[in-house]
Formats: sequence, structure tokens, C-alpha cells
Amino acid sequence: MSALAAADSNDRELDIETARYLFEEIAALTPDTQGVSRPAFSQVETETLRFLEDFARGHGLEVWYDAGANANFSLPADRGAERFVVVGSHVDSVPYGGNFDGLAGVVAGLVCLVRAHRRGERFARPVHVLAMRGEESAWFGPCYIGSKALTGTLGESELKASHKGDGRTLDDHMADIGLPMDKVRAGTPLIDVSAIEAYLELHIEQGPLLVGKDIPAAVVSGIRGNFRHRKVRCIGEAGHSGAVPKAYRRDAVLAMADLLVRMDESWSTILNMGDDLVLTSGMVGTDPQIHAMSKIPEEVCFSLDIRSQSARTLDDMRRLLKAEMRQVEKERKVRFELDEEMRVEPAMCDSDLVEGLKAAMERTGQEPFVMPSGGGHDAAVFSAAGIPSAMVFVRNRNGSHNPHEAMELPDFADATDIVYEFLARHR
Amino acid sequence: MSALAAADSNDRELDIETARYLFEEIAALTPDTQGVSRPAFSQVETETLRFLEDFARGHGLEVWYDAGANANFSLPADRGAERFVVVGSHVDSVPYGGNFDGLAGVVAGLVCLVRAHRRGERFARPVHVLAMRGEESAWFGPCYIGSKALTGTLGESELKASHKGDGRTLDDHMADIGLPMDKVRAGTPLIDVSAIEAYLELHIEQGPLLVGKDIPAAVVSGIRGNFRHRKVRCIGEAGHSGAVPKAYRRDAVLAMADLLVRMDESWSTILNMGDDLVLTSGMVGTDPQIHAMSKIPEEVCFSLDIRSQSARTLDDMRRLLKAEMRQVEKERKVRFELDEEMRVEPAMCDSDLVEGLKAAMERTGQEPFVMPSGGGHDAAVFSAAGIPSAMVFVRNRNGSHNPHEAMELPDFADATDIVYEFLARHR
Repeated sequence: MSALAAADSNDRELDIETARYLFEEIAALTPDTQGVSRPAFSQVETETLRFLEDFARGHGLEVWYDAGANANFSLPADRGAERFVVVGSHVDSVPYGGNFDGLAGVVAGLVCLVRAHRRGERFARPVHVLAMRGEESAWFGPCYIGSKALTGTLGESELKASHKGDGRTLDDHMADIGLPMDKVRAGTPLIDVSAIEAYLELHIEQGPLLVGKDIPAAVVSGIRGNFRHRKVRCIGEAGHSGAVPKAYRRDAVLAMADLLVRMDESWSTILNMGDDLVLTSGMVGTDPQIHAMSKIPEEVCFSLDIRSQSARTLDDMRRLLKAEMRQVEKERKVRFELDEEMRVEPAMCDSDLVEGLKAAMERTGQEPFVMPSGGGHDAAVFSAAGIPSAMVFVRNRNGSHNPHEAMELPDFADATDIVYEFLARHR
Repeated sequence: MSALAAADSNDRELDIETARYLFEEIAALTPDTQGVSRPAFSQVETETLRFLEDFARGHGLEVWYDAGANANFSLPADRGAERFVVVGSHVDSVPYGGNFDGLAGVVAGLVCLVRAHRRGERFARPVHVLAMRGEESAWFGPCYIGSKALTGTLGESELKASHKGDGRTLDDHMADIGLPMDKVRAGTPLIDVSAIEAYLELHIEQGPLLVGKDIPAAVVSGIRGNFRHRKVRCIGEAGHSGAVPKAYRRDAVLAMADLLVRMDESWSTILNMGDDLVLTSGMVGTDPQIHAMSKIPEEVCFSLDIRSQSARTLDDMRRLLKAEMRQVEKERKVRFELDEEMRVEPAMCDSDLVEGLKAAMERTGQEPFVMPSGGGHDAAVFSAAGIPSAMVFVRNRNGSHNPHEAMELPDFADATDIVYEFLARHR
């Protein structure tokens, strides 16, 4: 069978109709007081997969569940393929979340299968669409749970994490769903990883770059790694706000401000050198039990979240942070204490897949645009398991993890076109 | 009767003994789980005054209570003087406070009277020692309550302030003690202000300057005024910490840090120009209900406390604060909101009294040293009532308003000597 033709206007209309139907029905199936809530490894998540199963069967597709209780879909002819490309994402959401984070990637895969089946076409390589459970960290703490279980990389401490709502462990919740917990605990992959030729994931952009640049979709170059500290303490000395001259002060808040401004300046320098970096201190606070308007703050705590596509830049920032802390300590007579560092290594997308997706993007009539992913995704887990992985982003307003996610269906169709075009021709 | 001779070593020994007895007995009378607690307008405060009354009568001094229920003391010959110098301070403390804040000034006055009586000497002008109630704001909110009631300047809203413990109003508490509340409410002075030729107050230093400079005592040049904001809001925009590039961010915490560092730099500039200033942001915090390590902070609140001896410097800082806010708003796309400003005007000490105290300091063999007061004191209220006022500071470790206040008795004796020497000769 020959490679597929590019989408015509009729395909586009049908794709958008299919996507609208799936998004609307699933939103109606999983509402919360605000937005949607599809908890990881819950009955709601199971019902979402069952709904997709019914839809897919109704459209002549094959459907089956893997040992991780995730739903898999394919064209009838691709069901038994020895090796295949996976198009996947997750169906769970954060509490009071938006409808598109995760689900858009699953719907994109199904839209590709439905279009190919409708047109009686085959992809260049066999394609399996994977609708996964449990990616969001909001429910248990650990993230990418479903894909880690599949690839045998879910840690023991992660399995012991307890659900924010009912307090029961992740292990218990996964057992309820019917996962083979002996294998999960032993770190045995639940699927044959070597059968997966490539992993592709379409996802809404969680930042404002595509909106700002007025571009509907992008190919992702890699997923930013990070190092983070939940609690950095800056310890100075209390004193009367009116009675202590500047030279005698050890003001913890001014020292924190000084450090943050130094880091902010270094951030600009690194961007100017063309390197990738984002830096956030999302939580800061003096202790309400002891602070006062007329008291020099003796202590302040703050978080740090530093991300880059480049492991070298992260190493540079780690060194820079420590050097600036030492400098501020010396100049302002304070002391910084770092809690244990949390670290995620950057995951680069496979360069052959990135080139293939850029070429596909061009063939759909879109100017190729490549950008990093700031948030983490299941793709990072597949990449870490040695599977060539890549991603496509869809323009989306208002970030993610909130009910105000706003992906437009024409943008979704543009991004899905890139995936379809890639699957049609890339060998 | 001739002017008094300078203290000899015997006087010094007796003065220290008297002071030690008074400090120790009153600490034993007013203990708390930590330090001392002498609540404003409380029974404990009344008992403290009664203890001082018994002590003074036992040493041949005159004792009486004014209409504000404060204790007054004098040499027998000075009791009926038409005009006189007041040496005063307060006997209340903050909760879990130190023993010296306030009490040291009352004890200094009594030590002077006891020494003069023992030596059969008279001061250059008649002297009344005033042991006041209710200076600390910790109990009701308003400060300098006792001296404001005496001078007829206690405001209506201050009288309605409720006690942090029992919730009853200051008005009720003052009525319990027997104050003429009609007069207090009407703003009628409870004493003949015109009879007071000068007001002198000895107080522990609440900062570390005298410790740092290794000087036991100082003459105070004036009391810093201030303008303060309990809550400045900085409003930005939330976003995913990994997904939003720097150029698209409106980070409230980095904007606050930027503003504080700018203010800190201006502070250095103003000090270098020889002007007086202190600046504190004692309370800062993102909202624990909405903040997260991986979320760009959309809002942070912080307090500002800016003090100077110079009203002009305070005006300059007020303008500078607003200009820097506008600049940071522009550069970082955030918005600052100031709550209502609280303001206290600076109070300069009377220059004739300051010169007199410097001369007295020199006569006691101490190098004259003059410094500002950062904290507010009853002296500011007397000064505002048109009474020439001045202060002497005693070296003290660990600030005030905490059980670790550490004034040494030899330093107290040195400072009290300055007061005695002044009272002996200044006409």
C-alpha cells in the first residue's frame, strides 16, 4: 500500500468533528466542581478508557489492554505487528484540571487511526496508540507512574506514596486496578520495550510561547531537566527595625532578595549566550509565628526550581547558586541552608524523529518550528528506556493544570496533521 | 545649697547596690514562663508601682500618684515645686519581655533621688521622678498610652482598642485602674504640662551600636520617625515553572526581590550622604493556599518599615519607593498595591538639653557620644506636648522586648551618673 496523501479539507473537517466529540463526551463524563478531575488509577480513569474503547470499536479499530491496564488501539492490520511506533499520552488529569493535558495526545492518535481507516490507508510503519493511566503527580506525589510501570522503572518508595485523598498507597491502588504488582515491584517491564521503534506524543504547550509567536504547533527539541529545592533557609539575626544600624544587620529577607536578583541576572546572561534556562522561586515566606513588621527578619525560607534542556547548564547553575550564596553570606553575614536536591536529567528528543517531524510539518504547509518542553512528560520515560522519542506541541492559552486551558480545535488539527504526515511517510 | 560633687567610688557602689535590689525584686515580683510580663494597666503593673512606693518611702522620699495613676517621687523639698524637671520612663513590659526596657529609666531616677537624699544635697532645679504605666503596644496595639493620657493626646480609636488577652477595651482597663475617663476621652491633660521644665528619660539601647563601639552610654539626638506599610502586594501572573520563557513571565517574587534590592542600594547611598535611615521588610510571604514549587508566583505580600531622624529623608524615601515601584512594574509587568500608610513624625531632642547632657557626660569622665534612637519612647510624647525632652541610652546586648536583654549594672551606673550630673548642675 502506498504512502498516504496529505489531508484534504474534508479530512480536516472530519478530524475536528471526531476530536470535538471525544473531548466533549469525556469532559461530560469526568466533571468536577471546576474543570475536570480524572484521578490516576481510579474508576473515573477506567471509565474514560472504556469510553475510548467503545468509540474505537465503533470505528472499526482494534482495542486491547496491556498488563499496565492501559488501553491500546490500532488499525486491524497493525494489531499483531512485531515492531511498531507508539503514539501515546495519558488520560488522567490533575484535580480541577483542564480537559486537554494528556487527553489531547490520546485523541490525536485516535484521530490518525480513524482517518487512516476511513481512507483505507496504511502507515509507513505499524502504529499502536497508547492511552495511559496515571501521569500526574497531583494524586500520589510521583509522576509518570503509568509509563514507569510499563517500562519497569517505578521505584519502591514511589509505590509506597500515599493518595492525597484516601491515604492508601499507590501499590494498593494499582493492585485494585489489577496490575501485576509482583512484576511492578520487581522492576520488570510490563511490555516488550524492544518492540517499540519510536514513541511519539502530542501535548498542549504548558507555556505561552506559541500564543506569543502566533504559531499553532511545534516540534519539541527536548524536555528540560531540573534541579529543585523545596526549602532553602536563609538565617540572619533578629533585631529592632528602628534601632539597628545597617552595618550591624544580618537581614535574612534582604539577603534572599540579593541572591534572587543575582540569579535573575545570571539567567539573563545565560539566555544571551544562547543557552536554555528557566528559574523560579515559587514559595517564599518568613515565619508567621515569629515575624513582625518592626523586627529585622531572622529567617526566611524559599523554594528554587531551575530547569534547562542542557545538563551542562544545570551543572553551571548549581555551581553558580552555591558561589552566589557564599558571596551573599559573606557580604550580609547570613547563612544559607539547602535541603536535599531533587533532580531530573534533561531528555533530548531523538534527532532523527525531530528531523522527520520537521519535514512532516513542512509538508503540511507549516513553517517548521522547534522549541523545548518545560514540563515533564511520559516521553521522557520512554526516552530513558532507550526508545527513540519525540513530541509535538499544540498552541494553548492559560497554561495547564487548571480549568482555563484553552486549546483551539483548528490548532489541534494542525498539530495532528504533523503526526499523521510523519506516520504516513517516516520509515 | 551648693551644686553636688561628682560621684565617688562609694556612691557608685551604693548606686549599683540600689539598682540591683530594685531590678531583682521587681523581676521576682513579675515573672513569666520566660522573662517578665508586666501588662499595661494591669494589677501586676499596680503592684510594681506599690513596690517602688514602699522602697521610696523607706528611703525618705516623697511619693504620690497623679491622675493617670502613675507613681511620682521626689526629695521632700521638691514635692511642692511649681516648676520642675521630670525624669521618667515606664514600668510595663511586653509579654515574655526583658526586665530593663522601661524599668531602667525609673530606677535611674530613683537612684538619683536616693543618692541626693543620702548626701543631703539638692538638684539645680526641682526634680520629679515619674514611673509610668502602659507604654508598650504589645497589649492593646497603641503605644505610649500612659504618657498620651497624661498629656491629653490619647485618641478615641486608641481607647477602643481591645486587649490581646481578654478582648476588653483599653477604656475599660483604664477605668478599672481609676483613671478619670471623661477627661481622657475629652483629651484634657491629666497634669499641668506647663509645670514641666524638661523631660529626661534613660533607656536601654534597643540596637547593638554601643556594644559594637564599646561605649557604656550615649546621649540621644532624636527619635526616628517612620512610615510603614503592613502589607504591600505585588501582583504578577501564575504559570508553569518549566514552560514559560523569561520574556513572558510576570514573576511577583522576583519583582519584590528587585524592589527590595533597589531600596537597599538607595539606603546605602543615603547613608553615604550622611543622612539617617533604616529600612526593614520583616514579613514576606507567598500564599500557602496557592503557591507551589513548580508554579511562577502570581502574588507575594511584604511589609515595609522605613525610619529616619529626618522628616525630609522620610519624604525622599516615600517618593523613591513609589518611583522604584513604577520602574519595577514597567520592567517586570507586575503591579504593586500599597495598603494605608502608618506614619510617625521624627522627634528631635531639645538641643539645649542635649548640650547639657553632653557636658554632664564629659564631667563624669566619659567621652561625649550622641546617637539617634530607633525605637519610639514616651519622650516623643512629651516632646510633642511642647516640653523640652532628651534621653540617655545605656549599652545593652540582644535588643529589647525579649528575655535576653542584657544591660550590665556598671554601664547603668555610668549612664545614671550622666543624668545625676546633669540634674546637679543644669539650670
